[in-house]
Amino acid sequence: MWSETIDEHRRAVRDSILETAARLAIEHGVPSVTMSQIAEHAGIGRATLYKYFPDVGTILGAWHEQQVGNHLGQLVAAGAAESDASQRLDILLSTYARMLRESRRHHDTDLGALVHHGGSHVVHAEQKLRELMTDSIGAAAAIGAVRADLPAAELASYCLHALDAAVSLSSEEAVHRLLGIIRAGLDPA
Amino acid sequence: MWSETIDEHRRAVRDSILETAARLAIEHGVPSVTMSQIAEHAGIGRATLYKYFPDVGTILGAWHEQQVGNHLGQLVAAGAAESDASQRLDILLSTYARMLRESRRHHDTDLGALVHHGGSHVVHAEQKLRELMTDSIGAAAAIGAVRADLPAAELASYCLHALDAAVSLSSEEAVHRLLGIIRAGLDPA
Repeated sequence: MWSETIDEHRRAVRDSILETAARLAIEHGVPSVTMSQIAEHAGIGRATLYKYFPDVGTILGAWHEQQVGNHLGQLVAAGAAESDASQRLDILLSTYARMLRESRRHHDTDLGALVHHGGSHVVHAEQKLRELMTDSIGAAAAIGAVRADLPAAELASYCLHALDAAVSLSSEEAVHRLLGIIRAGLDPA
Repeated sequence: MWSETIDEHRRAVRDSILETAARLAIEHGVPSVTMSQIAEHAGIGRATLYKYFPDVGTILGAWHEQQVGNHLGQLVAAGAAESDASQRLDILLSTYARMLRESRRHHDTDLGALVHHGGSHVVHAEQKLRELMTDSIGAAAAIGAVRADLPAAELASYCLHALDAAVSLSSEEAVHRLLGIIRAGLDPA
């Protein structure tokens, strides 16, 4: 019980450090953020902060990794309650498109940008995202809702690249239209 | 006549400098290239080289700009002889897809990478490429070969992003399949 409480406390402090650092980076730019500022804004001592992280880069890297994990979690969860594989694919496509579009505002939190540049957790996330998309397309193909004459992995790669167009779209309606175009590319002949 | 000859000579020297620098950069990596090496391999004196360019970065930037211009020229020329707008669009899509796939080998010459990161000439080239694609789609839509219910610029953005998938494709056949998928997304309802 006691160790659980300690773990919980440590996790709460860690989360608060990540959140504070990210907020400061988004508000004032990454280069201006210092360990002292993070400690002050998170309401902890500098010595405590250094017990958790050695420098700002490591903190922002950890935050980044957490964000990527959260986004992946949202994508996995998005269609989980839907029993129809075709609807599930639609939900996955639209959730990812909206995520990419959101990312424009805080380009540091951008799953798309993360996926393009970044460390090993990003490569891992990209891999997971490809698997998720490939599985979802495979399931939709199995019920005849998506063309089954091409490898699901190729269709997934097509979807992920085409969805990148969502980053620069100006409206929800345009995202909706993009999803329609992409989905038409998947239609059985 | 005399000034024309001088211009031609200057252009030939300049081209040779760009080519030499690019070759050295591709063979040995950008950071290892020096002005002395470029002068030696291009068969000119260092003093002459400095009359053309102040440093290696400027030379590679100029080479880059030339490459982007050449690629754009190839894309413009690709469908020029074809009178059918639908075929012209197919040629544009496939030429660009093959260009992206080629780019994998020399990723420094990559039009795709250039278009994503780079200076003002890259922004300009991206703009030109969008216009070219939008015009080509508009022309195909006008003869009923592409859906006309959506803005051509949105369909062009979809195509350009989806074509990025060509960069990592392993075979010509896979490129052909990707083109089929993308084209299906453009089909009139």
